[in-house]
Amino acid sequence: MPSSSSRRLRAIQGTLLLLMMAIVSFAAHRAAAEGAGLKAQEPPFVSSDASAHLRALTLPYSNFASPEAKVAYAQLFATDHHAPPADADIATRRAYYDRFNSALARRAAEIYPVRVESKLFGGVKVEVITPKDGVAASERGRVLINLHGGAFLWGEGSGGEIESIPIASVGRITVITIAYRQGPEYKFPAASEDVATVYRALLKDHDPKKIGIYGCSAGGILTAEALAWLQKEHLPMPGAVGIFCASAGKFGGDSVLLAPELAGQAPLPGSTQGKLSFTPYFSDVSPADPLVLPMNSKQVMAHFPPTLLLAGSRDFAVSSVCQTDIELTKAGVKTELHIWDGLWHSFFNNPDLPESKEMYSIVVNFFDRNLD
Amino acid sequence: MPSSSSRRLRAIQGTLLLLMMAIVSFAAHRAAAEGAGLKAQEPPFVSSDASAHLRALTLPYSNFASPEAKVAYAQLFATDHHAPPADADIATRRAYYDRFNSALARRAAEIYPVRVESKLFGGVKVEVITPKDGVAASERGRVLINLHGGAFLWGEGSGGEIESIPIASVGRITVITIAYRQGPEYKFPAASEDVATVYRALLKDHDPKKIGIYGCSAGGILTAEALAWLQKEHLPMPGAVGIFCASAGKFGGDSVLLAPELAGQAPLPGSTQGKLSFTPYFSDVSPADPLVLPMNSKQVMAHFPPTLLLAGSRDFAVSSVCQTDIELTKAGVKTELHIWDGLWHSFFNNPDLPESKEMYSIVVNFFDRNLD
Repeated sequence: MPSSSSRRLRAIQGTLLLLMMAIVSFAAHRAAAEGAGLKAQEPPFVSSDASAHLRALTLPYSNFASPEAKVAYAQLFATDHHAPPADADIATRRAYYDRFNSALARRAAEIYPVRVESKLFGGVKVEVITPKDGVAASERGRVLINLHGGAFLWGEGSGGEIESIPIASVGRITVITIAYRQGPEYKFPAASEDVATVYRALLKDHDPKKIGIYGCSAGGILTAEALAWLQKEHLPMPGAVGIFCASAGKFGGDSVLLAPELAGQAPLPGSTQGKLSFTPYFSDVSPADPLVLPMNSKQVMAHFPPTLLLAGSRDFAVSSVCQTDIELTKAGVKTELHIWDGLWHSFFNNPDLPESKEMYSIVVNFFDRNLD
Repeated sequence: MPSSSSRRLRAIQGTLLLLMMAIVSFAAHRAAAEGAGLKAQEPPFVSSDASAHLRALTLPYSNFASPEAKVAYAQLFATDHHAPPADADIATRRAYYDRFNSALARRAAEIYPVRVESKLFGGVKVEVITPKDGVAASERGRVLINLHGGAFLWGEGSGGEIESIPIASVGRITVITIAYRQGPEYKFPAASEDVATVYRALLKDHDPKKIGIYGCSAGGILTAEALAWLQKEHLPMPGAVGIFCASAGKFGGDSVLLAPELAGQAPLPGSTQGKLSFTPYFSDVSPADPLVLPMNSKQVMAHFPPTLLLAGSRDFAVSSVCQTDIELTKAGVKTELHIWDGLWHSFFNNPDLPESKEMYSIVVNFFDRNLD
């Protein structure tokens, strides 16, 4: 057992230790508050690691967006649409999104009258969409390929129709929307192969400079991937492309975290880690492969034709859209970027929004200026 | 006095009224919760008026921005720079921003060696900035006018130098930065008049299609205003312009509210109400005047030359930058928009950021492509 004097010594040591800790702690606080000039930390504040510490707050809807967009935002994000969960079976998920998309496609066809024909191009299923009042004389040699969205899981048919009907009608041009192979039945590069097959078939009677390719969300990713794939196949580049609500690289930046907060939703699986785990289509790929993410190769990017990039500012993908624009610009590619304040992922699938009408006009004008 | 039976009747009526109110209230809640499909309200959520209800959260700095930008963001927003308050006297405010800007201008001149000469053009003070190794042969007939930022209050001299030195050096081109008249001593349209005076002087020996104008923040607003003013004066439009971190219309959209939260700052005075009250320079104007806010007139906007628009995604002005791009595009103007994820208002005044170097290159290439 310790003696009474050694107990007293330990007590003194303990007191000194506490005193020293208090001094060090006080000095550290003083340094933080004055010496290093750190700000007093009441939210909102930025900490020394550059993190933003936000307080709870209510953010009104953007006053730059249309009244119609405001109503649609509330309808989309304030009400429960009972979307099936990510682990529901694929037939259930496809049926849900097809109901959702079919209603939008029917509405689009009311405003924008078109003919829709199912065809095969080199064995790949497509729908050929042409304006009811005929293709304009100036657009006869031209064709646009649409690659629909839907996480490489759904969107075939009705999803492609929403994205194609307004463009075909406003542009008085032929749009071919491809029913490319998707997950979970198929994996990368099945979709890229299907795009190449249709493109080859079109090259038989089209100048490549008169062919445009565009897509939204998964279809935007596939547009970028298709350009890398066509390069690998030594096929000529198309005249112009559109990458909408999507990226030629990884998802990331501020928007993968902020956009879900603004919509009361969970982040897209994998997006905050820059992973492609939102879809089984990419389960076997290397994310370093430029055929998967063309931004891995400046050389591949440098061969992109003029590229239209667009999104809403509340799209989880908007940071990636902006990054793709900068990287393409650095690679010497002619780009055109437009962002609609307050609008969301794939907003232009709603054909009644004034912003959607602006988007259709911008897409049509872009291809008109950039295709031969 | 009422009889006992009439009192009893009123009591029964009162009870029935309360019961009916309870039933109506229950029905309304049920409709809200089930019929209309309103979501359960735990933050983050969107309410039926489209407002986003955010929880308190910590947002890491954008992983798309450079490490240098991350360090600079913390340096700018996590530490206290003891900026004088908005009601400090103008000499104190100018001295503070001049110290801040002079350090950046000195650093810019180390990386980008230039000559700086003070001159008068039609009686207006300017600095003429030329690359030390001479103007490139291809740039001899061309000139860029810079309109510095600084809330129409400060920025003369050092502020203009920061914005001009890298562009003059990278582009091997002459940049003339104008010491236009500002508040509180002067009011609108003093600055527009000064820009017109310098422009007229340059027109004596320059083709207007070989003149570019660009500016950041207040200088971006003034660039847009100058185009409206030159139209009023029946002067030819310049070949191309750049509106950076600024708008041809009112400030607004999501960014006037979100950007200050992300930087731990208060919003710019007036910006959340779309007012110009951040500066006394505009205290006497009508915000409906297209000479003040050219976006008031589609006709004025339609005469804009090709316009480069750019900002960081955390700039309070980024929503306005994007809106200006859309409105110019709708008016048929050729625009080019670039957004750097995670970057802040006037970020390119820091010449050491990789993003600033990208911006200098984009500005130089834009004017090279669009000037005669």
